[in-house]
Amino acid sequence: MESICVSAPGKLILHGEHAVVYGKVALAASLNLRSFLKLTFTSDDSIEVFLPDIDIHASWKIKELQSLFSSPHFNGDVQSPQEANSDCLQLIRHFLSLSEDTHDTKPLALVAFVYLLGHITQKLSGMKVELRSSLPTGAGLGSSAAFSTCLAAGLLVASGSIKDSRLGWEEKELDLINKWAFQGEKVIHGRPSGIDNSVSTFGGALCFQGGKITPLEKVPKLDMMLVNTKVPRSTKILVAGLRERYEKYPDIYRPVIDSVEAISVKCEETLSHLNDVPNDPAMIQTLRDLIGLNHHHLNFLGVGHKSLDEVCSICTEHGLSAKLTGAGGGGCAFCLITKDDSPRAIASVTESLQKCGYECWRTTVGGHGVKCHDPNEVISQLN
Amino acid sequence: MESICVSAPGKLILHGEHAVVYGKVALAASLNLRSFLKLTFTSDDSIEVFLPDIDIHASWKIKELQSLFSSPHFNGDVQSPQEANSDCLQLIRHFLSLSEDTHDTKPLALVAFVYLLGHITQKLSGMKVELRSSLPTGAGLGSSAAFSTCLAAGLLVASGSIKDSRLGWEEKELDLINKWAFQGEKVIHGRPSGIDNSVSTFGGALCFQGGKITPLEKVPKLDMMLVNTKVPRSTKILVAGLRERYEKYPDIYRPVIDSVEAISVKCEETLSHLNDVPNDPAMIQTLRDLIGLNHHHLNFLGVGHKSLDEVCSICTEHGLSAKLTGAGGGGCAFCLITKDDSPRAIASVTESLQKCGYECWRTTVGGHGVKCHDPNEVISQLN
Repeated sequence: MESICVSAPGKLILHGEHAVVYGKVALAASLNLRSFLKLTFTSDDSIEVFLPDIDIHASWKIKELQSLFSSPHFNGDVQSPQEANSDCLQLIRHFLSLSEDTHDTKPLALVAFVYLLGHITQKLSGMKVELRSSLPTGAGLGSSAAFSTCLAAGLLVASGSIKDSRLGWEEKELDLINKWAFQGEKVIHGRPSGIDNSVSTFGGALCFQGGKITPLEKVPKLDMMLVNTKVPRSTKILVAGLRERYEKYPDIYRPVIDSVEAISVKCEETLSHLNDVPNDPAMIQTLRDLIGLNHHHLNFLGVGHKSLDEVCSICTEHGLSAKLTGAGGGGCAFCLITKDDSPRAIASVTESLQKCGYECWRTTVGGHGVKCHDPNEVISQLN
Repeated sequence: MESICVSAPGKLILHGEHAVVYGKVALAASLNLRSFLKLTFTSDDSIEVFLPDIDIHASWKIKELQSLFSSPHFNGDVQSPQEANSDCLQLIRHFLSLSEDTHDTKPLALVAFVYLLGHITQKLSGMKVELRSSLPTGAGLGSSAAFSTCLAAGLLVASGSIKDSRLGWEEKELDLINKWAFQGEKVIHGRPSGIDNSVSTFGGALCFQGGKITPLEKVPKLDMMLVNTKVPRSTKILVAGLRERYEKYPDIYRPVIDSVEAISVKCEETLSHLNDVPNDPAMIQTLRDLIGLNHHHLNFLGVGHKSLDEVCSICTEHGLSAKLTGAGGGGCAFCLITKDDSPRAIASVTESLQKCGYECWRTTVGGHGVKCHDPNEVISQLN
């Protein structure tokens, strides 16, 4: 085995962003925009990591890493991932010469790499790890979870903890990948919900509520247009601002959060129905209705942005339906595309959106989770 | 007594439009935009009615009217208004040569006039009735209720059923005016809520829920800018459209209607507090918050319009807060004006709104209901 190739998808929150913070159900689905990781064994005495999408290229002598990993903070059973303790993270930060309070996710990706490497790999040998992604970073599409998932899967295969299975992993192996990917996410984000790594690992669509993740059994593939407004925002500030407003007017906000949950529940029912009766026009209309209604709610909740409203208006003018996805305040929106939408309308929407300076991708949601590839097949994806 | 002068105000729905249809509380307040009615006794053998605001000028011989009113459909006690039956209304339509299915409120104002004249006046004599209004018609500001209220009050005074009181009427007299005004509203609108005539009669502000009207005891006067988008709309179609959506997605819409009610309740509390502590900045901020939140809900409910959103955006950009008022889909919005708002900001908002083609009025809400005037004092209002 000279190299290992794995890929993992990004995610889209269909409904329930923000409501999930209040214990309500959220629906997320995998994107067909994926990250690809190639791990190549070398005869060098170093481990090299190359993350060109975020301008990171680092390498360390195996001896230096062995010395770092000899700390008892790196003890533990690879089959039962432990929570990262702050001492261990501090050791890694020190090793990487990072200041203690950095919240920039780029260097934190390197911390996550070292963390997972130290915990998963029993015996270090020379290797080169390279990751490339078709996912934009910082757009709420789960690029960091796709990274963590690829990394967990790649290192677990490299260490022999799970098999190199191009036919798909078993449930138990996926669970292990997911647990380690979640640890990687925690290193990067502090207190992630676990949605992103779960979608990236299992693919398809899932319900998330109160920390519990339930895969949806019947999910049709849906065509979407993803629109990145490129307006930067802070999830933390958006969540905190809503919390403050909610606490000031609980009787006014609580029912809206309930209504958002009812939208998620209705969407789940509708997806199940569409899986049985593909393209049922009434159900497609329901999906559209739910998207439009939820966007209004997100505006009510104060996490909208005029750029996101502009995206929705342009889509609505052409008979399509769009909503913001993720934290809001900028970032991405998605627009449902169905078989009945005329290519002309879609082209016209795309043109209008691009004229406003927004980035558009056609994508499909509901596809595969983490996958192992023949390294020769995906080499083109990496170059 | 040669002539009688009365005036009655229009109304503004502060919160709860549409939710009121689902049995929830709505808050309405009187405007300082009023209609004025002058009833002058003449020695002619005719009764003349002049409604220049809606281009109506009619007169009938007293003998013709006596013949019409001799029908048993006009029997009844002036002190206990009866529901208008359809036979009686058909008689009047026939008398006025109106087709049976007219829903145009202009000729229906004439039906209401004849209806109230026939029921309230025991002994017909020559008179001229003239009504002028500073209220725009068809803008959801209760111009027809101000008309019905003026008409009921004027005819009740003319017939001696209540006294000509320039010091204000007693509760019992106001109740009688309100009941007849409600009958007039029913003739014009079919199934009105009774809010408009109640505000026009009693003034101040009131809560309305499930047909029950409760005056608010403590209401501060509030400065507002009223903005008429002049976009025409049909209340009936808006109400029916929402009903259809509500019935399709009850679990999604019900909580939003609950949240709208929570806004009305919070507004009522806040008004009471502001009555005790005028201009309390925290309470003013709450009023503003509630206005902005409710506008989002009305958009969610599908009764917004891009012109109304434009009004709100312009106000928001200048630190003010606005929402649509009434049925929505066009019509009017209001913007709260407080002592702390700079005259420059207000002038700038007004200019921007007028540039968009909208009509703006500065007005006060929470003032007097129906009033009797010295005819000589208000003559200038009528000419």
